[in-house]
Amino acid sequence: MKLQSRHLLGLEGMSREELTLILDTAVSFKEVLERPIKKVPPLQGKTIVNLFFESSTRTRISFELAERRLSADVVSFAATGSSVSKGETLKDTARNIEAMKIDMVVIRHASPGAAHFLSRVVKANVINAGDGAHEHPTQGLLDMFTLREKFGRLEGIRVCIVGDILHSRVARSNIHGLRTMGAEVSVCGPATLIPRGIERLGVKVYHHLEDVIPHIDVLNVLRIQLERQESGFFPSLREYHRYFGVTKERVSQAGHPITIMHPGPINRDVELSADLADGEHSVILEQVTNGVAVRMAVLYLLGSN
Amino acid sequence: MKLQSRHLLGLEGMSREELTLILDTAVSFKEVLERPIKKVPPLQGKTIVNLFFESSTRTRISFELAERRLSADVVSFAATGSSVSKGETLKDTARNIEAMKIDMVVIRHASPGAAHFLSRVVKANVINAGDGAHEHPTQGLLDMFTLREKFGRLEGIRVCIVGDILHSRVARSNIHGLRTMGAEVSVCGPATLIPRGIERLGVKVYHHLEDVIPHIDVLNVLRIQLERQESGFFPSLREYHRYFGVTKERVSQAGHPITIMHPGPINRDVELSADLADGEHSVILEQVTNGVAVRMAVLYLLGSN
Amino acid sequence: MKLQSRHLLGLEGMSREELTLILDTAVSFKEVLERPIKKVPPLQGKTIVNLFFESSTRTRISFELAERRLSADVVSFAATGSSVSKGETLKDTARNIEAMKIDMVVIRHASPGAAHFLSRVVKANVINAGDGAHEHPTQGLLDMFTLREKFGRLEGIRVCIVGDILHSRVARSNIHGLRTMGAEVSVCGPATLIPRGIERLGVKVYHHLEDVIPHIDVLNVLRIQLERQESGFFPSLREYHRYFGVTKERVSQAGHPITIMHPGPINRDVELSADLADGEHSVILEQVTNGVAVRMAVLYLLGSN
Repeated sequence: MKLQSRHLLGLEGMSREELTLILDTAVSFKEVLERPIKKVPPLQGKTIVNLFFESSTRTRISFELAERRLSADVVSFAATGSSVSKGETLKDTARNIEAMKIDMVVIRHASPGAAHFLSRVVKANVINAGDGAHEHPTQGLLDMFTLREKFGRLEGIRVCIVGDILHSRVARSNIHGLRTMGAEVSVCGPATLIPRGIERLGVKVYHHLEDVIPHIDVLNVLRIQLERQESGFFPSLREYHRYFGVTKERVSQAGHPITIMHPGPINRDVELSADLADGEHSVILEQVTNGVAVRMAVLYLLGSN
Repeated sequence: MKLQSRHLLGLEGMSREELTLILDTAVSFKEVLERPIKKVPPLQGKTIVNLFFESSTRTRISFELAERRLSADVVSFAATGSSVSKGETLKDTARNIEAMKIDMVVIRHASPGAAHFLSRVVKANVINAGDGAHEHPTQGLLDMFTLREKFGRLEGIRVCIVGDILHSRVARSNIHGLRTMGAEVSVCGPATLIPRGIERLGVKVYHHLEDVIPHIDVLNVLRIQLERQESGFFPSLREYHRYFGVTKERVSQAGHPITIMHPGPINRDVELSADLADGEHSVILEQVTNGVAVRMAVLYLLGSN
Repeated sequence: MKLQSRHLLGLEGMSREELTLILDTAVSFKEVLERPIKKVPPLQGKTIVNLFFESSTRTRISFELAERRLSADVVSFAATGSSVSKGETLKDTARNIEAMKIDMVVIRHASPGAAHFLSRVVKANVINAGDGAHEHPTQGLLDMFTLREKFGRLEGIRVCIVGDILHSRVARSNIHGLRTMGAEVSVCGPATLIPRGIERLGVKVYHHLEDVIPHIDVLNVLRIQLERQESGFFPSLREYHRYFGVTKERVSQAGHPITIMHPGPINRDVELSADLADGEHSVILEQVTNGVAVRMAVLYLLGSN
């Protein structure tokens, strides 16, 4: 079996079989990561360019590690110090990539649709590493991998995503992927930060953590973008923390253990209390490990055909 | 046959035989770029440092790809975030490179002569990736490669370089290389942007596109540096476009096809209309592909002896 | 014999045997640097991440070269353009490194103790590439290597470190390493720039170059941080140069040759005259070469067990 598309642009529209193929492939790569020599040869002689038009440490390092461990040749560039400042359009960038005979492109960009655009104009495989508030499919996949590993399945698992759903590509990729795999997904946040009509994606909407916590197995806590405060979406950090901060006390009201996820980096004791982040039900560091394995799987499936 | 110098500092003074050697070598490397595995071993175990004191996406990525595809080890650094800000002189940088036993250095620098200076103080092979308004020899070579591929020869081909000749290292490298190979070269631009006495290099000077277009095969359109406007070299973009913008209508006055080149990145519809840039007589993307092949040839010829 | 710690955090507390092991190992790697192919395989398949939270050219390039020449896979990132700006704590960074299954981490950080902190929370080998004013152990080792090569031994060699001792991690690592190896160490600088109680480390303190120069074999001249002037530690560069600038005339008062060292980058004719920096008794460029060899030795000893 193969993936239908030559690109990974989003989890929306991918079939259960495709998602399962990626997750199953990632299981083998996770084993590679446990070996003393973590390098395997499938992308030897292939060239991957990482185009990060938005700053990132974790995602960029995770992709670079995945690429090098598959033996690819890697060229990375960040937007600063690049000709982006010379006003080159994404279209011209794309054509140049094409012309330089690059095999794969990993792109992070502030504009929703940037990866789709790129995939329409280049022959290289395109992997979306986050496009605005649209999708961040490898994050969705690593979250699903982590849950499947924890629970043995995704079908029927009850996941609530908490926070700024409106601006979150992580939320969107999780919703699409988890729904396809048969998980139950809800979202919880202030009304201003929940997109209208999100129920059509098959998710339930909550505005109070107390209402949802008894009915779920997993809380996926989104990072609050501190810079968004000024825009009036929510009044203050203190108030946000009071109503939507995920704390031990709140979680204990479930009466059963709740698995804690976070895409990082965490604002400790803002959206998530430090004790929960580091606690026994947190899988946050597993997410990071699984991120490398899942990215290796995606690069391998797209690049070695 | 070998190149006379251990460095590639400029095309001025290189012989027809040397230029032909580089172009012929690049033909083989262009074939490598068409293979699924684009990697060859000649620079295995060699260390190349890319010193980019001016920002660049395209040229840096092109060099890095060329270096990695020749199996070299690559260390890159951009001026920002470096000890350049600590006031280290180019002389000290050079000596340090020398001391670290680096085999080859690719340098881009705002000062004309920076690469020459470096070549006098280090044993490593030095490749000029653009030094101020002086030379950009690999750009000149890739332009010549592209034309030779298109026309089967360079002898007698009539090329006009349009734009800000005064500040252009691309123009200078093209003029030296093309003249040596027997091409006819002219330049066209506002009087303020043509260096005095340029006729001594064997080029004709025009101030109106209409006068030159009927007599040429190729227009090599230079990028207008938008930041130069404020310096009073030309009054406005609109006026520049009116007199020197290369458009379909203007080019059609030739009565024969005109090959369109541009070193990129393009200011679409300023110095060059979008339809021409993307049209059937444009070789702009071929230039980008050929850039990697030509750089592989230069690195191979200088580095593997 | 092996190093006692899995990390290289500082030279304080390391035994004479350990320091000798590193220096002896570096001798073999220096031979590798003289070969046409400078690459050896011991770290093949190992992943090293370079975390530079402070800008650096020389040290970063030196480490990257050492890593690549040992065949490691290298991922580097500088603080700018990273999620450090998103407020991620060093603790979270550390945990993420751990989770990504990275084998070794090289860290430069403005806070004293950053490398120690990291070493307590990750399984990866941690190498301190400079932590605030605390230690810069590979610099200390390369200085010791250079002196041992020059004099055939370290025991009894008389070294004076000149300049801003107070803020210098280079001074601190040199003092610890050289004292352990039996060298005599003194420091010389304005009273405001000598830490109180430094005599307890077994060094003599001088405030006039004339007093110390007759009694030493080596001057290790520290870089003056020009940005420190404003803080009132010393009144003006001119005055600093007058009292503590190392010049040919001053050094000649010794009546015997004095070996000149400097960790770079040099402020020529401020803390050190250009003629001495480039003169016959300078080993400044040897220091740079030896830096790569010493770093290869450290990476090899820590990473290949």
